[in-house]
Amino acid sequence: MGANAIVGQSGGPTCVINASLAGVFDVCRRRGVKTVYGMRHGVQGLLQGQLIDLNAGLASPLALELLERTPASYLGSCRYKLPDFRVDPAPYETLFSVLKQYDIGYFFYIGGNDSMDTILKLSDYAASIGSDIRFMGVPKTIDNDLMMTDHTPGYGSAAKYIGVTVKELVRDSTIYDLKSVTVVEIMGRNAGWLTAAAALAEDEDCEGTAMICMPETPFDPEAFVAQIDALQRKTPSLVIAVSEGIRAADGRYVCELGDDLSVDAFGHKNLTGTARWLCSLLGSRLKTKTRAVELSTLQRCASHIASLTDVREARQAGAAAAHAALNGKTGMMVGFTRLSADPYVCGTELHDIHSVANLEKTVPLEWIDADNARMRQPFIDYALPLIQSEVTQTVVRGLPHHLRIQG
Amino acid sequence: MGANAIVGQSGGPTCVINASLAGVFDVCRRRGVKTVYGMRHGVQGLLQGQLIDLNAGLASPLALELLERTPASYLGSCRYKLPDFRVDPAPYETLFSVLKQYDIGYFFYIGGNDSMDTILKLSDYAASIGSDIRFMGVPKTIDNDLMMTDHTPGYGSAAKYIGVTVKELVRDSTIYDLKSVTVVEIMGRNAGWLTAAAALAEDEDCEGTAMICMPETPFDPEAFVAQIDALQRKTPSLVIAVSEGIRAADGRYVCELGDDLSVDAFGHKNLTGTARWLCSLLGSRLKTKTRAVELSTLQRCASHIASLTDVREARQAGAAAAHAALNGKTGMMVGFTRLSADPYVCGTELHDIHSVANLEKTVPLEWIDADNARMRQPFIDYALPLIQSEVTQTVVRGLPHHLRIQG
Repeated sequence: MGANAIVGQSGGPTCVINASLAGVFDVCRRRGVKTVYGMRHGVQGLLQGQLIDLNAGLASPLALELLERTPASYLGSCRYKLPDFRVDPAPYETLFSVLKQYDIGYFFYIGGNDSMDTILKLSDYAASIGSDIRFMGVPKTIDNDLMMTDHTPGYGSAAKYIGVTVKELVRDSTIYDLKSVTVVEIMGRNAGWLTAAAALAEDEDCEGTAMICMPETPFDPEAFVAQIDALQRKTPSLVIAVSEGIRAADGRYVCELGDDLSVDAFGHKNLTGTARWLCSLLGSRLKTKTRAVELSTLQRCASHIASLTDVREARQAGAAAAHAALNGKTGMMVGFTRLSADPYVCGTELHDIHSVANLEKTVPLEWIDADNARMRQPFIDYALPLIQSEVTQTVVRGLPHHLRIQG
Repeated sequence: MGANAIVGQSGGPTCVINASLAGVFDVCRRRGVKTVYGMRHGVQGLLQGQLIDLNAGLASPLALELLERTPASYLGSCRYKLPDFRVDPAPYETLFSVLKQYDIGYFFYIGGNDSMDTILKLSDYAASIGSDIRFMGVPKTIDNDLMMTDHTPGYGSAAKYIGVTVKELVRDSTIYDLKSVTVVEIMGRNAGWLTAAAALAEDEDCEGTAMICMPETPFDPEAFVAQIDALQRKTPSLVIAVSEGIRAADGRYVCELGDDLSVDAFGHKNLTGTARWLCSLLGSRLKTKTRAVELSTLQRCASHIASLTDVREARQAGAAAAHAALNGKTGMMVGFTRLSADPYVCGTELHDIHSVANLEKTVPLEWIDADNARMRQPFIDYALPLIQSEVTQTVVRGLPHHLRIQG
């Protein structure tokens, strides 16, 4: 059994992915793992031997607190898909020789769908060669689209950011006494979990969004124009939330509908954003001001307004993975199970990585009121506990302080 | 002397404009003003007799605390320019008859350049007809471009939002081991105060932005491409901040350079954003990934990360205006004077509205290192005190709570 552990981060970042890293590191060290290494840029970096010793940099309690408050992947990330080892064993041989060289007994990978595919393939390969290295997946994605878990670490903070921001945009967008539509574009190609979070803005102090357009249900531009027209007769200033991934009935993404007509100054096809396309559509059909707001990468890195629930659970997921690996488990992912809805209590469970990797969980259709472009109460009940409480920031010179690898 | 006061908000909102409203209201009531009215949608609403009695809604200390934490204009806003009263006295006659009807003695207008023009014209008109109504301007603009004041309420919070966000984007944008340029587009057509605030992100825990492109200095696309190319040879992943108002040497806005070539799906000219145009330019000339991020209206309404210094000063400005009007002043704007740089101490002074209205303050050229597209230390020393400390949010169901006029 190798004496050391290695941990990597992969895929798009979240603002709590480093809390999972803190959880893995802390439990490994407390349970006697000699050295915890970090992969720079995930498996891609590991293939090139890019490792760092984390023991020194993360030794102090202050460093772990700062790490938890640092957005994006502290170790760097990659988008790398391992080949089938039966077809191309070469990268596996390279990786396992690096792992042997560093006397690795425990391998942790924090990521989403693609990263769980990596854990699946590495643990299957390990079994095929009789390696005793233990491979554990720690879930992470703002998209909340992983199977076998109530939700994913990262989603709660992104949902909180979206709720906070949409609420502020509603106040901002309704100050003038004129017809306007603010279209807020939110991430999510196939699953509308993030877009649905815009519904959280509605409360006694906020009128909320007038429409929420989800990728789970087909988008009809004509019906959309008619609906906005009808809504504006009652309320001139509207804010609506749309997923970047909404699609027409023929399956084309809305942001692709106008492509043939749009070429930029350099002759490139303009990848008109979904919100900008909808604003153009509304502007051409209704007498209304429009504004497109893309939340862009801000929704995955706004650690300054992270959900404390999410930060704690992300750390818990990393800790549970470390305990499991040290207890002999391999080829599994940590998932969350909601033990009680009210009061909200969530525990961790282990799932066979084969039941998780390469699958995608979308929003249940019965949670979506597609006719009125609204979310139903079960979604609110599901999401609200995940955005509760705030993290006290470590503010230095007016800005939240982060931890980074120097040089 | 009228027994009552009226207060309005005008122009683009900030996240502390309501703190100034709280300051005006609180001092007026404490000093015996009978009723404080609010104009709905500024002077435009007032012309239509749209007033509300603020006494009841803002009576409780809790309401004032929530008001301070609510972004955008609580009373609604407008963009309305009064005509010259010597040419067209009609709107003045309407306004003054409404003011007489409500027994108004004190008139407060919270806004930027255009709003100070309103105060100028109304106080000049009042003098011309011998009215004793007192007219006071309270500064407000995220753009920080008003004359005769060290800075404007609203700027500090927008600058803090930009600093926080750019710092998070730098972490997010540097995780992959590849060449990329993230172009962050920041508001400001002629003055680069907001864009300059991106420089605040740089600290021992953050490499900061690689370039800051300001509207105060001419923008050369060829030099820009060469500079990015040189920078990427040292650091593959860059984040740069650009003002939406950067212009080529011939005076054309960068976002207009490609217009003739770009038409959207509905035949409209595409108002390509500055950041998107620059990304297209870089993508066509250098082998690099690019990403355009527009901070959009978020930079003026992100009250959840407001600067406490800014909130306090905004309230102070409203309070000072109320004291001044009640002490007999008229035709003036409250300005800030920096009494001490270190430690930072700022006091209020009154300025003749004629020295303020319709003028614009840009960033001193000696604070800009145009050759290297960086801000110099005097700007940092100027801006840093304005973004200090945070507001404790009143969080309800996971989101900051706001105050709004119902119905």
